[in-house]
Amino acid sequence: MTKFPPRLFVDCSLTSGSIVRLKKPQIHYFINVLRLKPGALVLLFNGRDGEWYGSLAKCLDPISVKVENIRRSQQDPSGPSLLFAPIKKGPMEVLSQKATELGVSTLLPTITDFTDVKRSNYDRIKAIAVEAAEQCDRLNIPLIKPPKKLNERLQVWPENTMLLFAAESGFAKPINAALRDVKDKNIRMNWVLAVGPAGGFSPAEHEMLRNLPYAVPVGLGPRLLKAETAAIAALSCWQSILGDWENRPIDRNGE
Amino acid sequence: MTKFPPRLFVDCSLTSGSIVRLKKPQIHYFINVLRLKPGALVLLFNGRDGEWYGSLAKCLDPISVKVENIRRSQQDPSGPSLLFAPIKKGPMEVLSQKATELGVSTLLPTITDFTDVKRSNYDRIKAIAVEAAEQCDRLNIPLIKPPKKLNERLQVWPENTMLLFAAESGFAKPINAALRDVKDKNIRMNWVLAVGPAGGFSPAEHEMLRNLPYAVPVGLGPRLLKAETAAIAALSCWQSILGDWENRPIDRNGE
Repeated sequence: MTKFPPRLFVDCSLTSGSIVRLKKPQIHYFINVLRLKPGALVLLFNGRDGEWYGSLAKCLDPISVKVENIRRSQQDPSGPSLLFAPIKKGPMEVLSQKATELGVSTLLPTITDFTDVKRSNYDRIKAIAVEAAEQCDRLNIPLIKPPKKLNERLQVWPENTMLLFAAESGFAKPINAALRDVKDKNIRMNWVLAVGPAGGFSPAEHEMLRNLPYAVPVGLGPRLLKAETAAIAALSCWQSILGDWENRPIDRNGE
Repeated sequence: MTKFPPRLFVDCSLTSGSIVRLKKPQIHYFINVLRLKPGALVLLFNGRDGEWYGSLAKCLDPISVKVENIRRSQQDPSGPSLLFAPIKKGPMEVLSQKATELGVSTLLPTITDFTDVKRSNYDRIKAIAVEAAEQCDRLNIPLIKPPKKLNERLQVWPENTMLLFAAESGFAKPINAALRDVKDKNIRMNWVLAVGPAGGFSPAEHEMLRNLPYAVPVGLGPRLLKAETAAIAALSCWQSILGDWENRPIDRNGE
């Protein structure tokens, strides 16, 4: 299996010749875990300037990376946003990791009637998204918005944005049919996929959602999916039909 | 949120009037966690006899459930099998849980060239599948086959069974196109979805797989997915196009 240079998300600007000072956990990862030596090749991205080759600099304190040449220019993220109710720590971490791999653009934690998790560690959720972005070859990390109540979230709704919400009860269109309808009509718009917590959306929330002109209830089959499973499944279906899944990974052996 | 009777997978036969003795962890769950009282309604399934209502019996030692009337008759499982390389404990548990929710029929742990996990706890993986089946309303639990090497797994291949394998390098058909091709041709067959470990299938395995008349390499987009993410994504796409996702969950409020 070909060893590939490690990828690192950084905050600072990236241009040829600039020096990126590594933070403590990054130094630990590079030096103690990967045992990289000075001169080792690494890849850097910041969500704005594309992806750059760099090399681990010698004799700099703190340990730094010298930025060399560009590998890929920045592409605009095109994935959907994900509206979800905060869930327990373990499943929430699974959700953050998988949603990042599946190209989610924005995570919208949203308090619903049946949400029973009071507090979540959003620094940890972001750290997991960063790590997933580094590993899956993304050029950016998902935006994580502060939590909001569902009605507040729906009050200020961006233009030209469709909401597909997973509905376990009442009428719903199978998600494949809902996505293919839009694909066939060739309509360009922004997307929000929404999943409720355990127990789904409340009857009052169902009524509110079903009355929105931009919302479509979708079905994910006869089995009751956990919140994070529903999110991952909906993102997978979206990407396979409306997303970028006709593209292939960069061939890491071909470089 | 409506409280629904707890569901329990049991080994024994289910007929009206029979008595099911609960095992220690089941007793703990019913009595200490859910705090059920004698007479409480529960649901039982065993993967053969459908789903039955039962009631927690009084004064029986060990605590037992009296089987009453049938709720749903057994349906044949129709989901695909999943061929995967054993991965680390946490991701493997995620895989078992999500694959069960997504209707996998059989789990086929398979040793590949890049598999670096030597031993897995299959009792634990089964326990997680049982719990997921109980919670997601399945009428059976997935079969978990003993691990085998990839070439041995492929040597004895069932008739009329197609293999879709996730290929991160080389030619691959986008999974949506591959599944729609078959849907359009209206061919009935059995399915195995296959994902490699971290690093994917080796070049030698790629060659072996690509030469099989029943195998199709499929693409899951430009991002490098973790093994369990690829499995969950492939199962979701399969269910949405060829599976049972036109069906709805049983309305738990409607009873």
